[in-house]
Amino acid sequence: MRYIAVFDHFLRQDHRDQITRIAGELGFSVTYCTTVDDLPESERGRYEVLYGNPGPEILHLFPNLKWVCVSSAGVDRHVDDALYPNPDVILSNSTGSYGVTISEHVLMMALMLLRQMPAFQEAAREHRWHGPLPTRSIFGSRVTMLGTGDIGTAVARRMKALGAVSVTGVRRTLRPADPAFDRIITFRELDEVLPETDILVSALPHTAETAGVLSRERIGLLPGGAILINVGRGTALDQAALMDALRSGHLAGAALDVMVPEPLPADHPLWTTPNLLLTPHISGNMSLDHTCDVDVDFFCEDLERFARGLPLLRAVDRKRGY
Amino acid sequence: MRYIAVFDHFLRQDHRDQITRIAGELGFSVTYCTTVDDLPESERGRYEVLYGNPGPEILHLFPNLKWVCVSSAGVDRHVDDALYPNPDVILSNSTGSYGVTISEHVLMMALMLLRQMPAFQEAAREHRWHGPLPTRSIFGSRVTMLGTGDIGTAVARRMKALGAVSVTGVRRTLRPADPAFDRIITFRELDEVLPETDILVSALPHTAETAGVLSRERIGLLPGGAILINVGRGTALDQAALMDALRSGHLAGAALDVMVPEPLPADHPLWTTPNLLLTPHISGNMSLDHTCDVDVDFFCEDLERFARGLPLLRAVDRKRGY
Repeated sequence: MRYIAVFDHFLRQDHRDQITRIAGELGFSVTYCTTVDDLPESERGRYEVLYGNPGPEILHLFPNLKWVCVSSAGVDRHVDDALYPNPDVILSNSTGSYGVTISEHVLMMALMLLRQMPAFQEAAREHRWHGPLPTRSIFGSRVTMLGTGDIGTAVARRMKALGAVSVTGVRRTLRPADPAFDRIITFRELDEVLPETDILVSALPHTAETAGVLSRERIGLLPGGAILINVGRGTALDQAALMDALRSGHLAGAALDVMVPEPLPADHPLWTTPNLLLTPHISGNMSLDHTCDVDVDFFCEDLERFARGLPLLRAVDRKRGY
Repeated sequence: MRYIAVFDHFLRQDHRDQITRIAGELGFSVTYCTTVDDLPESERGRYEVLYGNPGPEILHLFPNLKWVCVSSAGVDRHVDDALYPNPDVILSNSTGSYGVTISEHVLMMALMLLRQMPAFQEAAREHRWHGPLPTRSIFGSRVTMLGTGDIGTAVARRMKALGAVSVTGVRRTLRPADPAFDRIITFRELDEVLPETDILVSALPHTAETAGVLSRERIGLLPGGAILINVGRGTALDQAALMDALRSGHLAGAALDVMVPEPLPADHPLWTTPNLLLTPHISGNMSLDHTCDVDVDFFCEDLERFARGLPLLRAVDRKRGY
């Protein structure tokens, strides 16, 4: 018998049944736990596979570990080889689970900013019938999408379906992408498209290359009235420059679901920056049933491949960072 | 020379130039005014055509009026024959101008309610990092759309593009509709689909038939956790029943852009109903440039037909009410 430990913070009973059944067919026994303390120290040597959200600090406690599958898309906390009992342990993520929920979050934020919803909500809190305000639409907008993976593609498809006049995908290297993108460029060409961007969305992971990519200079290249939405990692963005651009009115609005630091302290100036919608890193996570369903399906799919010795579909390149 | 008066509350200079040019080619002279007082009484007899938002109370002041084109989609204030100098005056509306802006409003409201955005906004106002909350998605939802005209169709297309599992259109009589609707039913079958509706949207005009159509009984037929969005006319909805359904938690949320009365008085209980997003009848109107562009195009299109004695494309049946 081979052993899997599942760090079970989001699974419904039907998910557990599904994992147990498929694992059993492949010769694995599954232990569901909340924290590593639920697994007796004497037994940790038996686990080859960890799934769910095992913290990076516990990985070295499993001497015979072969594969860690995190239920998140972001793996920034898990990329250091030193975390693992040995460098051959495979890390995989759950890219593909989050496209629906995060793209719906992006649409919501874009529409709230374009339609000046916060001003109407403020009036409603005061029981005040507000007059019309100038409104803009996704229809006819020029969208620039940083990141063209699952999340970027889900956003691009929805923006096109709503009539965005152009959707430009920006990625590390030129590779074919979903037809929802009107064109794909690399970061080298980013400065050329920023002045023609009404809605800038980042779904970039944290890597050495993405850190600081949305610099003060680049925010300055956006046209007056542009909006910026970040659902990737907060490190991509110069937050001080964003606050300045919102205070000066250069940007019409922004929405950050990710920021530095998280959680954001109560006295941080981001909270009081005008025309900025802040959410506590909830655009993805496991709050949507669909996300959990797909996440479990993906793990089971890769578990079959793992059992057969095939390369995993969602293996992460720890050096590259995603 | 024939004469047109345009009640000009939303036109840009390029719109005026467009109207003046096309009207001129057809033998019309155009006067742009803000209110009827800008038109000398002695000259009112010359105007055959009024466009824009001429109030219903002034129509009888134009003895030789032949056509009134309102820049709105709703015509409830203009359907009484007694308002007109004679019953042969044609009334037309601007249906088709509002699909983009109102459908984006509907998506925004649906996403804000499904994703519990107001709770995150309240936490953000208090500089508080809120934990995740259960979230739902348009993806996989069952949508019932009351009204299958321009607005209903624009909503249906967007809901399908976002992965709604079914979009049912409800209308007065069975007629072919846009393929974005999975099926079309009449109001006689409405009670059967309500229990299978996650997102109920009304874009119904005010008519004798639509008044009160969203009754207490029908709100009760919606499944627990459903959401309701009204962008048509407030008279369609039993507001007291809606408030009860939100207070009891039977409905997860609602968004009203239209209500009775408008403007809503500061002491009205709708303002303090939980999980209710209120906007001051701004989902349509002229706050989106695209709306104004299409509105003017439509007027010019029908002006050409009027000049040639052809039936107008957006003529309203005043008896039917739309």
